[in-house]
Amino acid sequence: MSVMEMSHRSPEFEGINADAESRLRRLLAIPGEYAVIFVQGGGSMQFTMAPMNLCLPGKPVDVLHTGTWTAKAIGELKKGILHHIAASTESEKFARLPRKDEMKFSADASYVHFCTNNTIEGTQWWQLPETSAPLVADMSSDIASKPVDVSHFGMIFAGAQKNLGPSGATVVIIRKDLAERADKNLPTLLQYRTHIKEKSLYHTPPTFAIYIIGLVLEWIENLGGVPAIERRNDAKAKLLYDAIDTSSGFYTCPVPKSDRSKMNVVFRVAGGDESKEKEFGKQAAAAGLVGTPGHRSVGGMRVSLYNAVELASVESLVAFMHEFQRTGG
Amino acid sequence: MSVMEMSHRSPEFEGINADAESRLRRLLAIPGEYAVIFVQGGGSMQFTMAPMNLCLPGKPVDVLHTGTWTAKAIGELKKGILHHIAASTESEKFARLPRKDEMKFSADASYVHFCTNNTIEGTQWWQLPETSAPLVADMSSDIASKPVDVSHFGMIFAGAQKNLGPSGATVVIIRKDLAERADKNLPTLLQYRTHIKEKSLYHTPPTFAIYIIGLVLEWIENLGGVPAIERRNDAKAKLLYDAIDTSSGFYTCPVPKSDRSKMNVVFRVAGGDESKEKEFGKQAAAAGLVGTPGHRSVGGMRVSLYNAVELASVESLVAFMHEFQRTGG
Repeated sequence: MSVMEMSHRSPEFEGINADAESRLRRLLAIPGEYAVIFVQGGGSMQFTMAPMNLCLPGKPVDVLHTGTWTAKAIGELKKGILHHIAASTESEKFARLPRKDEMKFSADASYVHFCTNNTIEGTQWWQLPETSAPLVADMSSDIASKPVDVSHFGMIFAGAQKNLGPSGATVVIIRKDLAERADKNLPTLLQYRTHIKEKSLYHTPPTFAIYIIGLVLEWIENLGGVPAIERRNDAKAKLLYDAIDTSSGFYTCPVPKSDRSKMNVVFRVAGGDESKEKEFGKQAAAAGLVGTPGHRSVGGMRVSLYNAVELASVESLVAFMHEFQRTGG
Repeated sequence: MSVMEMSHRSPEFEGINADAESRLRRLLAIPGEYAVIFVQGGGSMQFTMAPMNLCLPGKPVDVLHTGTWTAKAIGELKKGILHHIAASTESEKFARLPRKDEMKFSADASYVHFCTNNTIEGTQWWQLPETSAPLVADMSSDIASKPVDVSHFGMIFAGAQKNLGPSGATVVIIRKDLAERADKNLPTLLQYRTHIKEKSLYHTPPTFAIYIIGLVLEWIENLGGVPAIERRNDAKAKLLYDAIDTSSGFYTCPVPKSDRSKMNVVFRVAGGDESKEKEFGKQAAAAGLVGTPGHRSVGGMRVSLYNAVELASVESLVAFMHEFQRTGG
């Protein structure tokens, strides 16, 4: 019987579910006062569930606005939830993260929302914001890519599809006391406490996705855990950023070094010449390097270096970049 | 590249998504004024989304209460939504469906909720309720098992995991004008119109589950479509119910013939002798027939005959039942 055919109430699937949870707990050293649950709806559903569950009466949600994904979170907050933009780099097209002195938190925030890695803009937080209110992190695109001090956060959430497994499952790591803030009259499925109490099995979960997450976590453990995957990710990112930075300006990265993402590397070709960039994407695809064009909202090129990407793939890309530059594009 | 690795914005995945939708449209002859979307959260999320989107001010939700799944829907309505139980067979432990003369609909209902097949109680609607308000059907456990007149419904929803594919995707078939009832200030992901407008691609969908749904629908088409699958399901159900009804009372089905489900057959052994029923489940499992014990809330035995079950499997079960009866259990 395959996982897809199994009852989610069978001891076999309960084992698969518990195994995925305990592997994630080990890999990220998640303290006991945090629950780990698998829910549906992707990171986007968390833009709704977080305020529904974590808002305290009259106390705003503070947001560090750093790009497309925090814009989505703000979009949901605008539907009647008290909130405050504690910092924003929108005027600089989100090409950098806010500095510490630019962050103005509310005195009484319910929580502070931010996004640890901005996939479209190519930025990543290397120094966590210091807040008195619980920090809620959208870690969809860099979870399990490097060690993280979970106790620094009130809640971490991540759609699985970047670093953990197939789409359709979302990991939520939440300090259990925060889950008790929610009104018990909220829809059952939209309360964190439901999924905590039922160990993610209140209703039929995305069984196959959870099974694959367990296998991916096992693969990370076998590689040597998160520190080992971090070294692997560091090597990939260094190789690509070095290629950009030593191209005599043919390739340029708009993000300052201190804020550069090791998951999503954005760069321009020939000073942002759109026809050259189009040609780059076309020739790269012909060489088997598909998907290099950047998000339609920002243009340029974007290369994702999620956990699953091998160093050899980045070497192929860098070789292609040298050749593209040599032949003048 | 596997489906799990593909961007959901790639033309390849857009093709897979469109293909699954168009196959379902063909198989169920879904009229053009209905949208077909794939969402997350299972049938359970629809117990929240349906009232959120379809309620009109001051107009109640009518419910035909026929078992565990309508009880779940009512549980969500009790969280502050005006509703009315139009009929209930709870006093008879849901062993039958309400008769036409027992249904008392509100004059001004927003919609009428019911469940076409009750998995735990083993009942199935063979004559659809006639309502003036839009009929909303939880068809999670019998969608695509027999032809259905979609135009009789305002909305049909179904968690995929019984008849359509893996868990983690939910099919919603909704008359497009009804989706416009919703307040645009609702959370974006919880509005049907979002998924209709974006053809189920507003955010990352459960790509692998949708891919498998497409393959399952292709399999149904190759069998000869829904009429062919209905003949197959009829043959399986007849074989099993005949075995029960000709057992001289050793096996008994509590559901009257007019209301019996062809998807979930419930029966008692030796007049409901629990030790005999436990023995039946044990010996059946030893013979490779796993999962025959009924839901813990009702006891007895339950055999599910979803589309994927082969006639040969039911023949094996019936042979086992004869042998179990012959040897006195």
